[in-house]
Amino acid sequence: MTMPPNVTAAQWESALAGFRAAVGAAWLFTSDEDVGLYRDAYSPVWGEAEERLISAAVAPQNVEEVQAVVRVANQLGIPLYPISTGKNLGYGGSAPNLSGSVVVDLKRMNRIIEVDDKRNFAIVEPGVSYFDLYQYIQDHKLNVWVDVPDPGWGSVVGNALDHGVGHTMAGYRDHFNAHAGLEVVLPNGEVMRTGMGAMPKAKTSAAFRYGFGPSVDGLFAQAGFGIVTRMGIQLMPQPDAYLQGRIVAPRRNDFIAMVEIANRLEDIGLIGMPLYDSPMFIHQFQDPELRALGKSKDVWNGNAIDRYSADKGVAPWGLNLSFYGPEPVIRASWDYAKSCFQKAIPGARFEDIELLHFPLSLVEQEAVKHKVLVGIPNMNAFALSARSQINPEPADGHLLFSPLVERSGEAVMEAQRIFTDAMASMNVDFPYSYGPFTAPFTWIERNFVLATGLPTSRADPAVNKLSRDTMSKLIAVGATHGYGEYRTPPMFQDQVMETYDFNNNMLRRFCETLKDAVDPKGIIAPGRGGFWPKAMRGAK
Amino acid sequence: MTMPPNVTAAQWESALAGFRAAVGAAWLFTSDEDVGLYRDAYSPVWGEAEERLISAAVAPQNVEEVQAVVRVANQLGIPLYPISTGKNLGYGGSAPNLSGSVVVDLKRMNRIIEVDDKRNFAIVEPGVSYFDLYQYIQDHKLNVWVDVPDPGWGSVVGNALDHGVGHTMAGYRDHFNAHAGLEVVLPNGEVMRTGMGAMPKAKTSAAFRYGFGPSVDGLFAQAGFGIVTRMGIQLMPQPDAYLQGRIVAPRRNDFIAMVEIANRLEDIGLIGMPLYDSPMFIHQFQDPELRALGKSKDVWNGNAIDRYSADKGVAPWGLNLSFYGPEPVIRASWDYAKSCFQKAIPGARFEDIELLHFPLSLVEQEAVKHKVLVGIPNMNAFALSARSQINPEPADGHLLFSPLVERSGEAVMEAQRIFTDAMASMNVDFPYSYGPFTAPFTWIERNFVLATGLPTSRADPAVNKLSRDTMSKLIAVGATHGYGEYRTPPMFQDQVMETYDFNNNMLRRFCETLKDAVDPKGIIAPGRGGFWPKAMRGAK
Repeated sequence: MTMPPNVTAAQWESALAGFRAAVGAAWLFTSDEDVGLYRDAYSPVWGEAEERLISAAVAPQNVEEVQAVVRVANQLGIPLYPISTGKNLGYGGSAPNLSGSVVVDLKRMNRIIEVDDKRNFAIVEPGVSYFDLYQYIQDHKLNVWVDVPDPGWGSVVGNALDHGVGHTMAGYRDHFNAHAGLEVVLPNGEVMRTGMGAMPKAKTSAAFRYGFGPSVDGLFAQAGFGIVTRMGIQLMPQPDAYLQGRIVAPRRNDFIAMVEIANRLEDIGLIGMPLYDSPMFIHQFQDPELRALGKSKDVWNGNAIDRYSADKGVAPWGLNLSFYGPEPVIRASWDYAKSCFQKAIPGARFEDIELLHFPLSLVEQEAVKHKVLVGIPNMNAFALSARSQINPEPADGHLLFSPLVERSGEAVMEAQRIFTDAMASMNVDFPYSYGPFTAPFTWIERNFVLATGLPTSRADPAVNKLSRDTMSKLIAVGATHGYGEYRTPPMFQDQVMETYDFNNNMLRRFCETLKDAVDPKGIIAPGRGGFWPKAMRGAK
Repeated sequence: MTMPPNVTAAQWESALAGFRAAVGAAWLFTSDEDVGLYRDAYSPVWGEAEERLISAAVAPQNVEEVQAVVRVANQLGIPLYPISTGKNLGYGGSAPNLSGSVVVDLKRMNRIIEVDDKRNFAIVEPGVSYFDLYQYIQDHKLNVWVDVPDPGWGSVVGNALDHGVGHTMAGYRDHFNAHAGLEVVLPNGEVMRTGMGAMPKAKTSAAFRYGFGPSVDGLFAQAGFGIVTRMGIQLMPQPDAYLQGRIVAPRRNDFIAMVEIANRLEDIGLIGMPLYDSPMFIHQFQDPELRALGKSKDVWNGNAIDRYSADKGVAPWGLNLSFYGPEPVIRASWDYAKSCFQKAIPGARFEDIELLHFPLSLVEQEAVKHKVLVGIPNMNAFALSARSQINPEPADGHLLFSPLVERSGEAVMEAQRIFTDAMASMNVDFPYSYGPFTAPFTWIERNFVLATGLPTSRADPAVNKLSRDTMSKLIAVGATHGYGEYRTPPMFQDQVMETYDFNNNMLRRFCETLKDAVDPKGIIAPGRGGFWPKAMRGAK
């Protein structure tokens, strides 16, 4: 088994006894079999010495039990790693930054404390998944949507705390920004409520972001300043209808105007999440000529792409727009959007994709083309990495490289080239790798993420080594060009934080100062966010 | 003159010499006349011993000079109070929490560093006012709006840092939430950039809220953790058109449905800021019968109001809705809104108020009825408190009491009664005081603020004393019912923070822990946000 660092056998026995007393023997897990369940199934160091393994897991059922667990850990210097449902796959799963940590598994804290469909918020505990909250809303016939990530089995709280993202309208997709009010167990075992929750009688804790004085909530995301045990989250009223329309642009440089128009439509609230794609991306797997063209050196000026597009009728860019609201409004919005694109992009083509009226029956829900766009949690994301013509040898898992790129067509086309070159320099070529047909993800309001996945294997360490090396290279190349990672697995967090290096990494040094003050023993998720408690900084 | 506490004459002379060396003699102000300009013109302790006076003011012109000032202050233990333009009237103006503080006046740092009307953001220094930014956008014919507060002479940065608010769409009105990326001089004189700004090459610092790891930005609002010297702010694309429509509801309890419908319209992005009023509020000054009715004990059940409304055709509730977008879309949205209200509120009446197409000429801008709703900064707010039939004896200024109330009709009607009773128990009656015709302010997305102003005087201490006592009483009564202040002048910040008292004021104790770590000498705005550095906590 893996032990916490710098803990004697006697201290460890005391800690286990303390945890047992805190939560009951049935909810402390120490057997290899149980503990193994918390390994990161997508780990790029699976079975190697560097894999981050836990010593034990403890599953409290309420905030008092969390406090008791934290007090034991604080007294004995045991590092804890809190997880909500532990489904953060591609970003580390349920495995900690520091080997030997004890996972605090919050899945039993799964109460939906309140859902208000007049003021449009929910208050939930960390064990509540998107499926749970969706089901609750359906069962109670409430008139609100949850903005859901891909896939939907994760925790509403956990997703927000890793700066996770969804798929509906701006204001809802950035899940941490859509939260209001935290309940947190601090490293000293005390409970704090933030925002209006700090005023016991207030009924606005899930509606107002701040309360009075400084807002401390940001400290509890992507960091180990405490264990969040409750959170408010803003919900979107269920619209009368939803319309998806599609624009296809015939030339590579049309992407510049396409993005400018979509930015404007989104920032004024006329559309939800714009969904970019390149029809050429799929088509290259059917036409070796296009595949060769995509890999040629002179593809980047766009001329060859434009010629291919004109000859074969396969366009370089597509964009699906989502409209939410009363049918006459969203039809007028779509007409307006078409007129904007038509004016700016000669030869643009348009298609009506889907029109839905809510509420949907269960059968209708199943038939929805892109469920997350209408707030229906599902597991379809896993189908994307399943065996297919494009992906004949699916990996066991993937590392997600998620760099932020400016929300402009020029920036995306430049970043495509930079990351394609970086991959080529590593001699790697994955099916979903970078190229001129890579489209940006738009989850994060006002930003693009030019994400890709690197394969991981539970059988072949060479696959993992290449992916690790490639990931490191991509992080470094990205930083050189100002493309920062917004989220990364624990084993890359130090490297990523290192790239945020203005004034000799002042931001990290500031985080360290706060950490040493709030958690002097460094017991809550040491290393999370790429900064370490004082006692562990020397070793680095 | 007022001296900083616990500073010898020799230390003070050293400090002044240091400040002079940092910014040049011309930008250090120590004469009574100069220093007097920083008094809070709305102070409720004007001329009394309790008035918070400064010792000197220093006006750096760039971040290096701010650093130099902070280093001097840190070395000698001089408390600083940073202001941007110092226009926070009603909430303390430019006067500090701690008498003897040196104001760091950032008005000379007034560079507009960037305005991007394709990605829709600006990056500004603290000295940039709303007028400045608006003028810049006009001069450069950029296609964006700034969401402006009332009035428009304040600082874009300063307003955001006091959790200030505006008047257009959700996502823009909460100015701190619309920021991204801070540059901050920390108490030790080091410069930190937060978010993506910490990655020097990144071009997303004004677009993405977080960067990597915890978000520390919240610490720099309503608190003294550093001096913000630069900030990104998200801008709204200029819409094609704007339409304002009005709904009038004939019965008191119609307010419940009115709010529910407006909440739904707003949270799905169909409207901007809903603007509530009571036509009875103005009418009571013309009809003594209505005025008496409004003050009667049995007004609260609503029957008398409904009868008066039916007899005289003066309604208890009005609501103006703002629609932004292409004309066909906003006309369809307004039609939809009308159909919703019509169904839920029998006898509701509707009126088209204004339709504008952008850009506006200067003449057209002047003619706009409610300028802040279309992002035009102005000084009209001062006209509201000028001499009028309703307000025959205008005060010199006012204290703003700003409690958050749940965004529901029931909550507003209950809070009206609670605050009316509280005022009555103090035997005070101001023209704009609480009553059954008090409408909620809606600046803060998803919340109501049932604000009122209490008069202050530069001639009559009795006026101030009554207002102070009333303010204290209102804060206490509000907290008893869960209505917390979101913002308050320095002299009430301790009391307000005290009302956020969950778990023995854990939130304040957490802020104190952070303060002691980041600013151990307590030199940046000690007391701001209602918590104090260690050395000053004993005295309280």
